[in-house]
Amino acid sequence: MPTGTVPTGTPAAGTARLSLATVCVSGTLEDKLAAAATAGFDGVEIFAPDLLADPGSPAAIGARCRDLGLSVDLYQPLRDIDSTDPDRFAANLRRADATFEVMAGLGADTVLVCSSVSPDAVDPAADADLLAAQLHTLAARAHERGLRIAYEALAWGRHVDTWDASWDAVRAADHPALGLCLDSFHVLARGSDPAPIAEVPGGKLFFLQLADARELSMDVLSWSRHHRLFPGQGGFDLPAFLAPVLAAGYAGPLSLEVFNDVFRQSDPVRTAVDARRSLIALAEATALAGAGTDPVATAAPSLDGTAFVELTAGPELGRVLRALGFSRTGVHRTKQVERFEQGGARLLVNAAGTGSGAVAAIAVESPDPDASARRAARLCASPVPRATGPGEAEFAEIPAPDGTALFLCRTSGDAGPDATHGPPWPHDFVGVDEAPAPGTGITGIDHVGLTQPYDAFDEAVLFHRAVLGLDPVGDGEYAAPFGLVRSRALADPRRRVRLALTVSVLRRGDWSPAVADPQYVALACDDVLATAAAARAAGVPLLAVPANYHDDLAARLDLPAGTVAAYRELGVLHDRDAHGDYLQVCTELLGGRLFLALVQRTGTHDGHGWPDAPVRMAAHRRSRLARG
Amino acid sequence: MPTGTVPTGTPAAGTARLSLATVCVSGTLEDKLAAAATAGFDGVEIFAPDLLADPGSPAAIGARCRDLGLSVDLYQPLRDIDSTDPDRFAANLRRADATFEVMAGLGADTVLVCSSVSPDAVDPAADADLLAAQLHTLAARAHERGLRIAYEALAWGRHVDTWDASWDAVRAADHPALGLCLDSFHVLARGSDPAPIAEVPGGKLFFLQLADARELSMDVLSWSRHHRLFPGQGGFDLPAFLAPVLAAGYAGPLSLEVFNDVFRQSDPVRTAVDARRSLIALAEATALAGAGTDPVATAAPSLDGTAFVELTAGPELGRVLRALGFSRTGVHRTKQVERFEQGGARLLVNAAGTGSGAVAAIAVESPDPDASARRAARLCASPVPRATGPGEAEFAEIPAPDGTALFLCRTSGDAGPDATHGPPWPHDFVGVDEAPAPGTGITGIDHVGLTQPYDAFDEAVLFHRAVLGLDPVGDGEYAAPFGLVRSRALADPRRRVRLALTVSVLRRGDWSPAVADPQYVALACDDVLATAAAARAAGVPLLAVPANYHDDLAARLDLPAGTVAAYRELGVLHDRDAHGDYLQVCTELLGGRLFLALVQRTGTHDGHGWPDAPVRMAAHRRSRLARG
Repeated sequence: MPTGTVPTGTPAAGTARLSLATVCVSGTLEDKLAAAATAGFDGVEIFAPDLLADPGSPAAIGARCRDLGLSVDLYQPLRDIDSTDPDRFAANLRRADATFEVMAGLGADTVLVCSSVSPDAVDPAADADLLAAQLHTLAARAHERGLRIAYEALAWGRHVDTWDASWDAVRAADHPALGLCLDSFHVLARGSDPAPIAEVPGGKLFFLQLADARELSMDVLSWSRHHRLFPGQGGFDLPAFLAPVLAAGYAGPLSLEVFNDVFRQSDPVRTAVDARRSLIALAEATALAGAGTDPVATAAPSLDGTAFVELTAGPELGRVLRALGFSRTGVHRTKQVERFEQGGARLLVNAAGTGSGAVAAIAVESPDPDASARRAARLCASPVPRATGPGEAEFAEIPAPDGTALFLCRTSGDAGPDATHGPPWPHDFVGVDEAPAPGTGITGIDHVGLTQPYDAFDEAVLFHRAVLGLDPVGDGEYAAPFGLVRSRALADPRRRVRLALTVSVLRRGDWSPAVADPQYVALACDDVLATAAAARAAGVPLLAVPANYHDDLAARLDLPAGTVAAYRELGVLHDRDAHGDYLQVCTELLGGRLFLALVQRTGTHDGHGWPDAPVRMAAHRRSRLARG
Repeated sequence: MPTGTVPTGTPAAGTARLSLATVCVSGTLEDKLAAAATAGFDGVEIFAPDLLADPGSPAAIGARCRDLGLSVDLYQPLRDIDSTDPDRFAANLRRADATFEVMAGLGADTVLVCSSVSPDAVDPAADADLLAAQLHTLAARAHERGLRIAYEALAWGRHVDTWDASWDAVRAADHPALGLCLDSFHVLARGSDPAPIAEVPGGKLFFLQLADARELSMDVLSWSRHHRLFPGQGGFDLPAFLAPVLAAGYAGPLSLEVFNDVFRQSDPVRTAVDARRSLIALAEATALAGAGTDPVATAAPSLDGTAFVELTAGPELGRVLRALGFSRTGVHRTKQVERFEQGGARLLVNAAGTGSGAVAAIAVESPDPDASARRAARLCASPVPRATGPGEAEFAEIPAPDGTALFLCRTSGDAGPDATHGPPWPHDFVGVDEAPAPGTGITGIDHVGLTQPYDAFDEAVLFHRAVLGLDPVGDGEYAAPFGLVRSRALADPRRRVRLALTVSVLRRGDWSPAVADPQYVALACDDVLATAAAARAAGVPLLAVPANYHDDLAARLDLPAGTVAAYRELGVLHDRDAHGDYLQVCTELLGGRLFLALVQRTGTHDGHGWPDAPVRMAAHRRSRLARG
């Protein structure tokens, strides 16, 4: 969603209130609260350092939250409370009193107390009674002021470092103002089983923090502080975590606590919208799995394929498509758009605009476009108004995070019985009187490859996962000539729609003399050598691949000499894994950053040619320099 | 050093040849080779993926290297050679033959074979003879072609993962064309003791790769692939590694193999110069420790303090310095520069230029400025020509990586006997007939704080470490309002010159509504409350600090009420650690990004107020917004 767009009319996720920790987004406290409100959150967790840097008193900050329609669901954290040193514990209680004072001003009734990391922390294995007594004392002190303590096990706590250890401590302390805070990161990063959470009395679950993460092998503290993600962006099974929490009877807010280096410096409104989408999608997924409280949960559409890809016309695009064997099968009734087809591949070429060549839109086949659009809107992905002429197809256009348009539409069928959604999209095109081209063996669209804006990569993964029901089918990272690139592939369960998203691992500076933000459409074929040979004969500018690459390939894969010769001739890139092979032939750049690829998959290979991307990128740059 | 500047007249580090792995720098192979040559390297290691993406044949690439004056000292890597499966080993030997073919073209006689990570790797604990036999076979095959195998233990090798295990394997294989490649990262990251390397026969040490790294807690593979640094930029004791290698009789090149995410996307010439500086400084440090071969090694100057800091004049700077109690003690004979002094603090205000307020230069007191400048030039930090009038002081001006000028000069003393270096710098100023100000208790310059350009942070650390002999005295990372900030403090052994360098952890995008690249001069005083009160009374615009901060501080440090009241009044930020306290009062911004700080240290506190930086940054932004 573009910066500053306010999602409207988006109902909450079932009956749960949604909350955002101020640590999740960039800015000063003022920016963060405004972003949470703009995105439609019900409440916030206020992180103490954000409050300390704000010039307003706690009461003024609390009033600001209420003015914005936000409750202060949690103040956090109060650290290192218990101590084997009685004087230290007394000083810690004085700190707690100051925290309670702040909470009274804010109007927050719950504070997060995390397990101590201090050398003087009480070890329950050595003295469980002391820990229980100190927590009881703290809770009693909070209780006098009408406040509650939510005790959380940090995964790197000195002694209490698992959720069940924190539950043991809470049970032993036995005070009504003392309960648990569960944080999915701390539970899942330790590999703990969340299922037994269902047996904790719901009234003892005071707060719930949700975060996802990619599987990374690093110390858990660094992982937690830098690389958390919103639910659906990483690899944790969060529905399996949320289900037992709800089953236990937890009725508080679903709150996000996500420390992420990228989000900390991105536009906070945009990040907050992404965050809210993640919670709605998680509540939906949990409900669909039978455990949640989301009465309007709807499954993602079962996609029937890529209906078409719309390209803005680069200088050579029309000529190249004809040389690739595409037939021009129609022109748009009212717009400067031509339709090209071959096999199941449909490409629209839009001659309006700057003409530098780019992917303008991806249209997916939904069995019920209207229902899909309504579901998307609920996921903070509201359709934008499209200019349509009378009688033209109406289908949802949703801006994806990278600015490309996502269309949910149908290629065949009738207009709706009540004419609410009009005819399928091909109706908008008038046929042309041209002989169909013979084709070169292209059978459909394999996938679209899109470089994402630096700040939008994880957002884009979640967007497509939530709105289209695509699943992650591959992660990668490769050393491209001008910096590392991270990649993530998404596909629907039936592999009819595939997307390959990439992003620079570090935002690029001045030294980047290559092709900025490349995009491509990968066209499927059954015999890439035959298709590429036909294309080459027809004058398609195929990308030359260095002989060194093929020499190495021949040695690695022990290929027959004839195959290698054909590869050299046509510029084939060949990747192999245990599941099959991925062969591709790329065109030269058609304009500033767009190219086409001819792709042949064997077996169940789910890759996208990433091991060969550095060679391809160097070749595209070289070719661009050579062409001036 | 600015982009594209070619260091000239820089002799090599003693008798050692200096080599750069192509993985160290950004670009295609062509860019990388050109950068290595421009920086003055003697040779390169060619990384196979760089060769595969190059359109030139190995012979053409070899010729290109020779044209550039570069030898190809190593081709790398040849992976996963040994195998428990005889068919697989036979296939691996065919791969090796293809590699030997490439090397023959390149004119490279040594190939890096790294220990296998494959599931079928031979475990020497199970069958040492098989591993020895396979390595012997490989070496014999190389020997037939006049080539050598340098065998290296990857720290994450499946079985062979320490340097002594690789030495056991090489000894057992016993072939003259088989020797060791030692990589400081693999040795030091595993915590292995390098001292016993001195007992390996020098003729068996075929190659030496050098890399430094920060101490990070993550898996060693990720650490190695993303976070290596050039020697002197991290925390490894590389002289203690190099010494036994040289003592063993190693006579090959000192080569850098540094995988670093930032360097992979930075200007390759600049990175290559940084790289070469690191080797020269390492050779020097090793020689000074008594173990090296660098006959011209010279110790860094023993700095006597900060001679002066030159600021470009922001709108209020002169008025603020007077209000701070500085006396105007001189004007430059020929330039629009005024000199202000108080206690040992000397600030020059340069009225030329844009006047937005910035640190233009830092001048350090060197006992022998000429010798320091010659040493700097040898470290790829050549002085640039300065415009000086007749009879003016001549001292070296060296551009630091962030563009500020570094001056090596003297405040007192005579002109040199042969008039080679002219009089000390104060000679360039004419006294003014003004009554000295009474002062506010400022005693000197505590340190200068400089935000570094994203790509130049590690380079800047090494630059100041090498050229000035500063040592790292503190690392940090903090969550600033608009993104994470990394910080590194440097100081000379006597703490007379301090620098605080900071950089955004991620390069900033569009959302950064704060103060870009702040800089400051921290002025030392013995009683910051008295100095700040006097400054405030004289109209210095002091930065207001939120009451919430002081409430929290009072609770944390248990401060008396009177102290807290004074802190509130003056905007004191107070950091405490086990070594002492750091109190600071900051001014508002004086122009675009410059401010001054009044600083009081107690005990041996070596910090720079970083824990309070987020509060200060939020306050500066707020104040800027309020002032419009």
